[in-house]
Amino acid sequence: MAFTEFRPLDEKSLVEYIKTVPSLSAKLGDNLDGLTIKEVGDGNLNFVYIVIGSSGSFVIKQALPYIRSIGESWPITKERAYFEAVALKEYGRWCPDNVPEVYHFDRTMSLIGMRYLEPPHIILRKGLIAGVEYPLLAEHISEYMAKTLFHTSLLYRSTTDHKKAGIAFFAVAEFCGNVELCRHTGQVVFSDPYRISPHNRWTFPHLDHDAEAVRNDNALKVEIAELKSKFVERTQALIHGDLHTGSAMVTQESTQVIDPEFAFYGPIGFDVGAFLGNLILAYFAQDGHANANNDRKKYKEWILSTIEDTWNLFHKKFIALWDKHKDGSGEAYLPAIYNNPELQHLIQKKYFEDLFYDTLGFGAAKMIRRIVGVAHVEDFESITDAAKRASCERRALELAKLLLKERRKFQDIAEIVSTIRQIQ
Amino acid sequence: MAFTEFRPLDEKSLVEYIKTVPSLSAKLGDNLDGLTIKEVGDGNLNFVYIVIGSSGSFVIKQALPYIRSIGESWPITKERAYFEAVALKEYGRWCPDNVPEVYHFDRTMSLIGMRYLEPPHIILRKGLIAGVEYPLLAEHISEYMAKTLFHTSLLYRSTTDHKKAGIAFFAVAEFCGNVELCRHTGQVVFSDPYRISPHNRWTFPHLDHDAEAVRNDNALKVEIAELKSKFVERTQALIHGDLHTGSAMVTQESTQVIDPEFAFYGPIGFDVGAFLGNLILAYFAQDGHANANNDRKKYKEWILSTIEDTWNLFHKKFIALWDKHKDGSGEAYLPAIYNNPELQHLIQKKYFEDLFYDTLGFGAAKMIRRIVGVAHVEDFESITDAAKRASCERRALELAKLLLKERRKFQDIAEIVSTIRQIQ
Repeated sequence: MAFTEFRPLDEKSLVEYIKTVPSLSAKLGDNLDGLTIKEVGDGNLNFVYIVIGSSGSFVIKQALPYIRSIGESWPITKERAYFEAVALKEYGRWCPDNVPEVYHFDRTMSLIGMRYLEPPHIILRKGLIAGVEYPLLAEHISEYMAKTLFHTSLLYRSTTDHKKAGIAFFAVAEFCGNVELCRHTGQVVFSDPYRISPHNRWTFPHLDHDAEAVRNDNALKVEIAELKSKFVERTQALIHGDLHTGSAMVTQESTQVIDPEFAFYGPIGFDVGAFLGNLILAYFAQDGHANANNDRKKYKEWILSTIEDTWNLFHKKFIALWDKHKDGSGEAYLPAIYNNPELQHLIQKKYFEDLFYDTLGFGAAKMIRRIVGVAHVEDFESITDAAKRASCERRALELAKLLLKERRKFQDIAEIVSTIRQIQ
Repeated sequence: MAFTEFRPLDEKSLVEYIKTVPSLSAKLGDNLDGLTIKEVGDGNLNFVYIVIGSSGSFVIKQALPYIRSIGESWPITKERAYFEAVALKEYGRWCPDNVPEVYHFDRTMSLIGMRYLEPPHIILRKGLIAGVEYPLLAEHISEYMAKTLFHTSLLYRSTTDHKKAGIAFFAVAEFCGNVELCRHTGQVVFSDPYRISPHNRWTFPHLDHDAEAVRNDNALKVEIAELKSKFVERTQALIHGDLHTGSAMVTQESTQVIDPEFAFYGPIGFDVGAFLGNLILAYFAQDGHANANNDRKKYKEWILSTIEDTWNLFHKKFIALWDKHKDGSGEAYLPAIYNNPELQHLIQKKYFEDLFYDTLGFGAAKMIRRIVGVAHVEDFESITDAAKRASCERRALELAKLLLKERRKFQDIAEIVSTIRQIQ
């Protein structure tokens, strides 16, 4: 059987496919007898097969040309597998400890073969719902964000690293093809929650007025327009594009960032904000998961300290990389100009002030869209009591609106954490 | 003679070339006898031939693969002719009254055939040095800027206008190739004036301390970094990229914008600032051109009112286009979201506040680089008395530094004009 044009694989054709690919076959010791194959894609966009043999394993992820949960009415490019593969390789180059290795990529089949993240790896979001603490999470995710975002920005990159001069533009060119996914993100994050849209939903009827208030909030709409423009126009670094708590698999010792199929050159704060915003959603969902055995109070504290640590460690590590490479070939701040410690401090301070506001803005936008937009989060969805769920969601929404509108009044992440505490 | 690969034309081979191009030959009534050919390129980058026959005329502009004034030591892509041709056609589509028509483009030869702007058209900068008033200049240039910048931004453009979804990215892709010219601009505008560079020069020794002060001004360097980042990363509209007073040809009745070879998707304020900044340079040069017959006082007032009118008319026309198309297919502010007059007013106010700061910042950066960077302006260069020239330049530099550092403190263009007056 030849695979010369795209077709979705099933468990049977997958085995035929593996036989034709030496690099995958070799991972199984060239022994395809007694393979265990399990389809585990709980996302919207792909088939994900876990393939386990007697002497090895991997995951096969195949992109479909539409969003699975909505069906063929919302077509979306299967070329995203290309962007995911390129991004995984680029991120793996800078942060191999926190990104699964890519074994194989087939553009025709929109298919990636990569490391199987074995148990007890689970999706971080599921761990957060279960109330599991991950003591190394802030350390790992800050490492991942600092390394991938710094090294793909003009703070690090130079023209001599690349044949074509001007990495920002060169890089943009390569990722220009990822237009459709950017449009999709743009619509669901920056547009739909602020207008009547058939895709929008919310906890009904409890949040009817809250959803309407979002649609009628002029100040909020002015701010979301600014963020949308930054999202579309700002080519700051190769960002993951969908860095929520469902895009990381974790154990007590390991944090692996997956699914960068929305990767594109965009604002760094979009990644950092997505992660922190989703931690905040997890925090506000905890009261819905509390029961007689566990009031989740201690766990809420752990989430808050993880939010604070993630930002502070990210800041520290990003600045350390910047200091290390300040005399390198990065084009943003040439050493001949930014040549004294006071000035270096000034530009870093300004850079992080802007990045902090971006992070808060994008994080808030991501929270809002998960409450009144098309795609919700399991943190809230798994709260079966609608009134209880609505109460959790309303507090998260209240915080998000405050952050989006007043973000420039906050000085540091500790103030954010203290504001989160005040919302009851 | 065939022209199947690039070679620089001289007056003789140019005639041979015209014979091979029916569209050019036809412009001359297919009569090539007794042609007048004159090379008039006073720029750095190109040959420009005026070709006049008995029944027609045109201009041939050929890009050379290096900067002419510096020689072959500074190679630069001749592909810029491609960007110039694409931009001229796009601008001509939106503002045909103020952009010369393109008759012919040859990518292999890096050559454009376009309308000859007949006498008394002269380069605006030369008119400003001679003290000639152009009563329609503000009206025309604001029309050009409003129309070209609005229609190539996401305020107007939609995905349905184009096959490929997401015009910002699509458009970026097309112009990504213009990397080298962007790098050149980036270097001469945002880097060289702020460091020791062999290309820098200034009126010596008068401005030695002034040039050194620029290189040691931390606050200035922090601001220039922000502008550089915007210049590199922000894909707001198809900007001209070099819209100074040498890029317009004028008569009392006509204003024609030429030379968009640096065109790329960038921040709108870079164009508006370039034009206003160069008018301010022209203003400060006037004292150097004053003599017993003409103290230039009245002319300085005309320049100031042209600065004020240009911004105010640009603002008015841009907003009028926005209002006209607010329910159109532009993707920046969807009508379903930005659906009431108060909100429309709020977003326009915010948009123009940001654009005003960008304009002041980029305008100031353009002024600074013309005084202590590699390429100077004839406005000052034509003042032969070095002490007098330095005095004019110093005042312009003082204003530019103030604008760059304090631009967010200004409310409107009238305050800028009044600040210009105060610098003596």
